[in-house]
Amino acid sequence: MIKIWKDLFSDNIGDFEGYTIGKMLKYIKEPDIISFAPGMPSPDTFPKEMIRKASDAILRENLEGVFQYTSIPGEDSLIESVIDFLKTDDINIKKENILITNSGQHGIDITGRLFLNPGDSVLIDRPTFSGAIVAFQMERPQFIGINIEDDGSNIDGFREKIKELKKGDNPLPKFIYVVPDFQNPAGITMKLQKREILLDLSYKYNIPIVEDSPYRALRYCGDSIPSIFSLDQKRDGMNVIGLYTFSKIFAPGVRLGFNIGHPRVVEKMINIKEANVLNSPKWNQDLCTFFLKNTNLKEYFRKNQDYYRKKLEITITSLDKYLGKFDNVSWTKPEGGFFLWITLPKKINTMEFFYKAVEEERVAFVPGEVFYGENPEKNHLRLNFSYPKEEELKEGIKRLGNCLKKHL
Amino acid sequence: MIKIWKDLFSDNIGDFEGYTIGKMLKYIKEPDIISFAPGMPSPDTFPKEMIRKASDAILRENLEGVFQYTSIPGEDSLIESVIDFLKTDDINIKKENILITNSGQHGIDITGRLFLNPGDSVLIDRPTFSGAIVAFQMERPQFIGINIEDDGSNIDGFREKIKELKKGDNPLPKFIYVVPDFQNPAGITMKLQKREILLDLSYKYNIPIVEDSPYRALRYCGDSIPSIFSLDQKRDGMNVIGLYTFSKIFAPGVRLGFNIGHPRVVEKMINIKEANVLNSPKWNQDLCTFFLKNTNLKEYFRKNQDYYRKKLEITITSLDKYLGKFDNVSWTKPEGGFFLWITLPKKINTMEFFYKAVEEERVAFVPGEVFYGENPEKNHLRLNFSYPKEEELKEGIKRLGNCLKKHL
Repeated sequence: MIKIWKDLFSDNIGDFEGYTIGKMLKYIKEPDIISFAPGMPSPDTFPKEMIRKASDAILRENLEGVFQYTSIPGEDSLIESVIDFLKTDDINIKKENILITNSGQHGIDITGRLFLNPGDSVLIDRPTFSGAIVAFQMERPQFIGINIEDDGSNIDGFREKIKELKKGDNPLPKFIYVVPDFQNPAGITMKLQKREILLDLSYKYNIPIVEDSPYRALRYCGDSIPSIFSLDQKRDGMNVIGLYTFSKIFAPGVRLGFNIGHPRVVEKMINIKEANVLNSPKWNQDLCTFFLKNTNLKEYFRKNQDYYRKKLEITITSLDKYLGKFDNVSWTKPEGGFFLWITLPKKINTMEFFYKAVEEERVAFVPGEVFYGENPEKNHLRLNFSYPKEEELKEGIKRLGNCLKKHL
Repeated sequence: MIKIWKDLFSDNIGDFEGYTIGKMLKYIKEPDIISFAPGMPSPDTFPKEMIRKASDAILRENLEGVFQYTSIPGEDSLIESVIDFLKTDDINIKKENILITNSGQHGIDITGRLFLNPGDSVLIDRPTFSGAIVAFQMERPQFIGINIEDDGSNIDGFREKIKELKKGDNPLPKFIYVVPDFQNPAGITMKLQKREILLDLSYKYNIPIVEDSPYRALRYCGDSIPSIFSLDQKRDGMNVIGLYTFSKIFAPGVRLGFNIGHPRVVEKMINIKEANVLNSPKWNQDLCTFFLKNTNLKEYFRKNQDYYRKKLEITITSLDKYLGKFDNVSWTKPEGGFFLWITLPKKINTMEFFYKAVEEERVAFVPGEVFYGENPEKNHLRLNFSYPKEEELKEGIKRLGNCLKKHL
């Protein structure tokens, strides 16, 4: 009988332990805990009546088709709806530029699988989305992280790194991964000028940009900045791979998203998808099609923006009130998305602080260290404001303040 | 602008072209073609009223929960239902032994990812399931194939190969992949004695067995043979990883399946799943739970067995009638599943014959060569009998006979 399974596991997976956040979520299920940890949309935003109506129609009209094997790249009707949807954001693509994925996470993993050999480098922000880090980790790359700035990725830092690698005759990064709008976890948005300079860099060194855009439609104040993908299209290029999900603009439970990019990239991604999961479920796709086609999206997004803006304002007000008095405690001021990033004094390790906060004050968050590809900073935490109810936001931040007071 | 994307792709994926069958299916969409190509269940078997009823209940009771992020290993309710379902097949497992996957294909890919480094070897049948070959190919293993026999995998051949590798101080295969019941593509079932000897081999050399069981519940004649997983449990072992799908026993459109095995294996598979797709969609899972819990499964399977048995009988009768007269043309006699395997005279290349059959006679199948991991034989074809209507089975096999007559 096999006793030591680990000896049989692949080099990529043998030491891979997956997603830290997922494991922590189990720990904070008790109902008296106020949790700022998961990145969940509020179910208040789910278009419930539309979903029931759509499902009825889908199961009435074509049940046999819905439950059969279907097209691997995605349903034509959904692909067309996504193409129309992206036009409203100044992105103009064709069918050959798009792959329907089984979620944003899936789109990220397919991207990592397409490009990364063990030891290849990837340029990322410090901090950046932990889901991208774990997906890429399955290919064992080397992460090169540069501290993010208040106006987005440190592009000068990216350039210096690339020059340094080139000078040392090292292979250049396989791609640059960024979340330019309301970044997870920092809530920071990349300014227009930086997006253009990042494209210059990509063109100069032939390094693709992976633009992860889960929150782009969720802007609560300030003016929208063109996506890097759309800026690239103005140059007639296609150096950008765009990753999108229905999780934040519709509902996570549909488990669908889409990747867009150069036809050669999409073609290879389809190859990976077919050997990985074959096709995406058609009921779920038809639901997204119905959502995109039968919703006044402008009004829908405005309503959700209003809903989340209020939560963001309560969060900021509560932070001022309960955390404003502490020295060396600061937070980012997002213009959209689901998160903000709190920096505590250097002496506080937020992983240890997490367990104290949960046990003593019944409040939870995600320790910042999981958002680093290498050499994690320990004194930050990610706070989600989309899911907790308004009263929970106030009370939870008060508890956070109490806990800080005790341990500072 | 990036011109040569291929230079950036990973070694695993750069030359990977995916699933040949998928690409051929596009070619045979015209309605006058009778296709024996895809491995689809007949929609006549879908429990349509149950699906509508179940969906209504799911969306009425807990829509907010259904559309939120959910548990990565799978819904507890589905896991419990699967545990009960497997008990009826003499398999007794706990929650720690099971992972809900996004399809049989997904279960296979997760298995390949868990075990395979580039260059690792995998023992397989010749022929074997092409979907497994393409999934494993993404890790660039070396396939060692042994010709399958009328009573299942050639276990003596497997043993000789392992001994040969051991003698040459080569690494042993990472696992042995088999489809013991009504194998795809050959329709062959492994006899009991071979299952036991395969287990002996697995125990002697510490090589896991990957038992892919999509068709196990679809036996149309003869007596059921215990699964290798259940035989292993009688030895108190857990060397077998069982792969299952809802596609053939319920409907492909739910895109769900499950992997079972040793807790350490399942734990690692959960890690892979969370970084690959996070969770499976809950509506789809709840539908499968409803199906397992609210169906008289014995009666349901008996009905579907009756339905497919008739198609199998018509297929065999038609083959006797239209192909029986040709020398060196033979076919397997499956006791279940969806496929049988036709061997033509050596001089016929079934890939070339495919295009002739489609163009001249409007009949399609899958050329046998896609079912080999290495050194493909060219004179076989796979014939699916589950999907075509009864009249199409007769007419399609007649057309196949006409085409053979012309080209022999």
